[in-house]
Amino acid sequence: MLYLCEIRTRLPGDLPAAERARLLAAEAARGEELVRAQRIRAIWRIVGSLANVSVWDATDHQELHALLQSLPLSPYQDVQVRPLAEHPLTTLADGQRIP
Amino acid sequence: MLYLCEIRTRLPGDLPAAERARLLAAEAARGEELVRAQRIRAIWRIVGSLANVSVWDATDHQELHALLQSLPLSPYQDVQVRPLAEHPLTTLADGQRIP
Amino acid sequence: MLYLCEIRTRLPGDLPAAERARLLAAEAARGEELVRAQRIRAIWRIVGSLANVSVWDATDHQELHALLQSLPLSPYQDVQVRPLAEHPLTTLADGQRIP
Amino acid sequence: MLYLCEIRTRLPGDLPAAERARLLAAEAARGEELVRAQRIRAIWRIVGSLANVSVWDATDHQELHALLQSLPLSPYQDVQVRPLAEHPLTTLADGQRIP
Amino acid sequence: MLYLCEIRTRLPGDLPAAERARLLAAEAARGEELVRAQRIRAIWRIVGSLANVSVWDATDHQELHALLQSLPLSPYQDVQVRPLAEHPLTTLADGQRIP
Amino acid sequence: MLYLCEIRTRLPGDLPAAERARLLAAEAARGEELVRAQRIRAIWRIVGSLANVSVWDATDHQELHALLQSLPLSPYQDVQVRPLAEHPLTTLADGQRIP
Amino acid sequence: MLYLCEIRTRLPGDLPAAERARLLAAEAARGEELVRAQRIRAIWRIVGSLANVSVWDATDHQELHALLQSLPLSPYQDVQVRPLAEHPLTTLADGQRIP
Amino acid sequence: MLYLCEIRTRLPGDLPAAERARLLAAEAARGEELVRAQRIRAIWRIVGSLANVSVWDATDHQELHALLQSLPLSPYQDVQVRPLAEHPLTTLADGQRIP
Amino acid sequence: MLYLCEIRTRLPGDLPAAERARLLAAEAARGEELVRAQRIRAIWRIVGSLANVSVWDATDHQELHALLQSLPLSPYQDVQVRPLAEHPLTTLADGQRIP
Amino acid sequence: MLYLCEIRTRLPGDLPAAERARLLAAEAARGEELVRAQRIRAIWRIVGSLANVSVWDATDHQELHALLQSLPLSPYQDVQVRPLAEHPLTTLADGQRIP
Repeated sequence: MLYLCEIRTRLPGDLPAAERARLLAAEAARGEELVRAQRIRAIWRIVGSLANVSVWDATDHQELHALLQSLPLSPYQDVQVRPLAEHPLTTLADGQRIP
Repeated sequence: MLYLCEIRTRLPGDLPAAERARLLAAEAARGEELVRAQRIRAIWRIVGSLANVSVWDATDHQELHALLQSLPLSPYQDVQVRPLAEHPLTTLADGQRIP
Repeated sequence: MLYLCEIRTRLPGDLPAAERARLLAAEAARGEELVRAQRIRAIWRIVGSLANVSVWDATDHQELHALLQSLPLSPYQDVQVRPLAEHPLTTLADGQRIP
Repeated sequence: MLYLCEIRTRLPGDLPAAERARLLAAEAARGEELVRAQRIRAIWRIVGSLANVSVWDATDHQELHALLQSLPLSPYQDVQVRPLAEHPLTTLADGQRIP
Repeated sequence: MLYLCEIRTRLPGDLPAAERARLLAAEAARGEELVRAQRIRAIWRIVGSLANVSVWDATDHQELHALLQSLPLSPYQDVQVRPLAEHPLTTLADGQRIP
Repeated sequence: MLYLCEIRTRLPGDLPAAERARLLAAEAARGEELVRAQRIRAIWRIVGSLANVSVWDATDHQELHALLQSLPLSPYQDVQVRPLAEHPLTTLADGQRIP
Repeated sequence: MLYLCEIRTRLPGDLPAAERARLLAAEAARGEELVRAQRIRAIWRIVGSLANVSVWDATDHQELHALLQSLPLSPYQDVQVRPLAEHPLTTLADGQRIP
Repeated sequence: MLYLCEIRTRLPGDLPAAERARLLAAEAARGEELVRAQRIRAIWRIVGSLANVSVWDATDHQELHALLQSLPLSPYQDVQVRPLAEHPLTTLADGQRIP
Repeated sequence: MLYLCEIRTRLPGDLPAAERARLLAAEAARGEELVRAQRIRAIWRIVGSLANVSVWDATDHQELHALLQSLPLSPYQDVQVRPLAEHPLTTLADGQRIP
Repeated sequence: MLYLCEIRTRLPGDLPAAERARLLAAEAARGEELVRAQRIRAIWRIVGSLANVSVWDATDHQELHALLQSLPLSPYQDVQVRPLAEHPLTTLADGQRIP
């Protein structure tokens, strides 16, 4: 089941550089796991912002909440979640993406 | 180049039923054309609203504007457009979508 | 799976009285069906407004969208949908409600 | 009498870990008391946020204010309170919940 | 139990003058009844607006909702309701008002 | 002349406990003086918030500004001020309050 | 006593031209009366909008409300009223304006 | 050329008292200079807030920006600037102000 | 002197087609005049909206207001005006534009 | 391809003066490079704010994001990005700018 998430990260200015680097590396690694597990199905940067818009796939709300909380940066993130339903064109568009 | 569009349609209450049906059919047909032409790359309904969120692919801003205006319902639509850049995980996620 | 919906109804001022009465009766009947089918699990009025807050139970987003659109007043409703996950106290609270 | 509360918690970043853990444990314990006393009648997490939506039952506004202030995290919480009245379907829905 | 209500009235421009006059007279008469019954405990105009701020006294949320709906202009009113609790100075201030 | 004030207090998290206690006691004492002097004519808590809504009586805007600044917590308060005029029911309601 | 008012006028599109002209002429005449009576002490257009910002002088809130309602366009106006107090520089600035 | 400015000052809580006093004195002195130079033509306090609304007179936008930045508190100020044009009543009102 | 204007046009749905065409043609002609007179110095469409963002050059606020009102569509336009000052890079950028 | 960017800078109050000066000098130098490279095509200050509005030219969204992140102050900037399309008058206006 698909959800559109907008995730905005605000790191505190006084975060020590080493901790900051550690968090960013952990976030990148966890993000890669979530993509490989097909939990994150699509993800883009919002131009000009430390923010992304992403399509998540989860069995239910409970799992999505757990997946979002598994992000190492989640204590510093504002997340907006919107459930996505199929549009009459969704399947056609999905088919077009396959080469 | 990708754009995230949120399109909300507000049809006037006094639109004659025949005109309404004609517009909706034309919108569906034009939407299908845009998907087949890979201009609309993904599209979902926002649950509970006469609104969609969609990923559009256009050569440039000029073309996107023309594509959005080619929708028969465009006089009744509020459109929010945000340019999308690649996130470090975008390509990996795109690869995962291909079966 | 649970969703918190806030539904605000705005009937046009020039709706003929008979059509208005017909719509309200149909809405009440459809609401009762949805409660008996355990799709609407809880519902209250927001004091002072022609609006309700309700907890819906649906198999997935797609079904929720269809259920909301099955309301006869849906063309006149603004609906805000938020997915609900379990709080550590949810199950305990659910148990307490049973006499 | 029922109230819909939305409670969002914002813990300061520089809260010592021990104090943070103590507060969270105290909040959980107080929450459980309030559920057992049937003051909190229902509670869910808003997916993706450190926030909950909950239905409180209090004799009057005064008591509700005191109950909310009895939460150990209340100095760090933004609370929105809305009084709930019965919808024509409320009783039917309440009846459906009892197994 | 007290509630702070802000009531803003928007009469449609095409309301016939006779109907408008009838509604305003009925609203005034119903308002006077509610004051005499001590349901409206205090009421003022917000300067420059067709709006009032008022303190209502009702047994519970259900009754307040019914009282607000008993206003002849209620189909044209936006109402914001906030429950009021006692401030440490409330009783002292109430005592001061009595000559 | 009457004004409706909404006063929200935000104490900084790092305020030493002794200073905090001193400020709160001074605020309570000053509030009592203002009630006894019939400058604050009515005051309630907004349920669930460290905020109050209050009716102030001042000779003119200048005096109201000085009275609000005389509150020991004023450096930590956001104040919204709205002038109140008489509603056709104001006098009747005022009469009803006197036993 | 001074008030800062922002008055935005929205004339309905279907107002007959003659009625529109009559209203605008009456508004201009009433405005001139209010300036000559020193009720409107200063007034400017907000560039690009059918709106003005103006400084009104009234004995009290009650009178200001009556003055604002005496404008022929008042049924079509949104008015925001803010009470103005003296700034330490107010008197000096007032003195400078006199040639 | 006239501009309506709303200037809100937010001094950080941890500003040392001596620095705070120095800044406030410098701001008052600079404000007086600007009034004497007829750059600030009118100024009032917004009741209940550490904010003012003021009418500035500058040769052009560039000069206004420089004048606003010359305020010692400018690093702590949010400024909203709106250009003011003449209303048909402006000149008449200006004439009325001169005794 | 430069101003950044955002102009959004909302044509009423019931505007007769001939009147609509006449207005749009007159707007285009007037726009061309304003560009040739170097009053509009730059103008773009906001992608997906019946709106533009434009840089206007006027002698003073008064003239800008008159120029904006000279647009045939001005009764249907919401205009936001912001004065622009020089940035340290403005002149350099202006120079770069000349081939 | 053109983008309208609004960039607001908020430097933390506790930034050491030397670091602040270093950042501002680096920002100015980088800004000059971007203008000379015709990436920033136009730029102005928003009067009264530490903010600018600027027109950027980039090959695609990806490059724009990289250019914005190359600003030394980017960690302290909020950036709003809007894609700009041609208005029917754009080319004419561009031509008028060349002396």
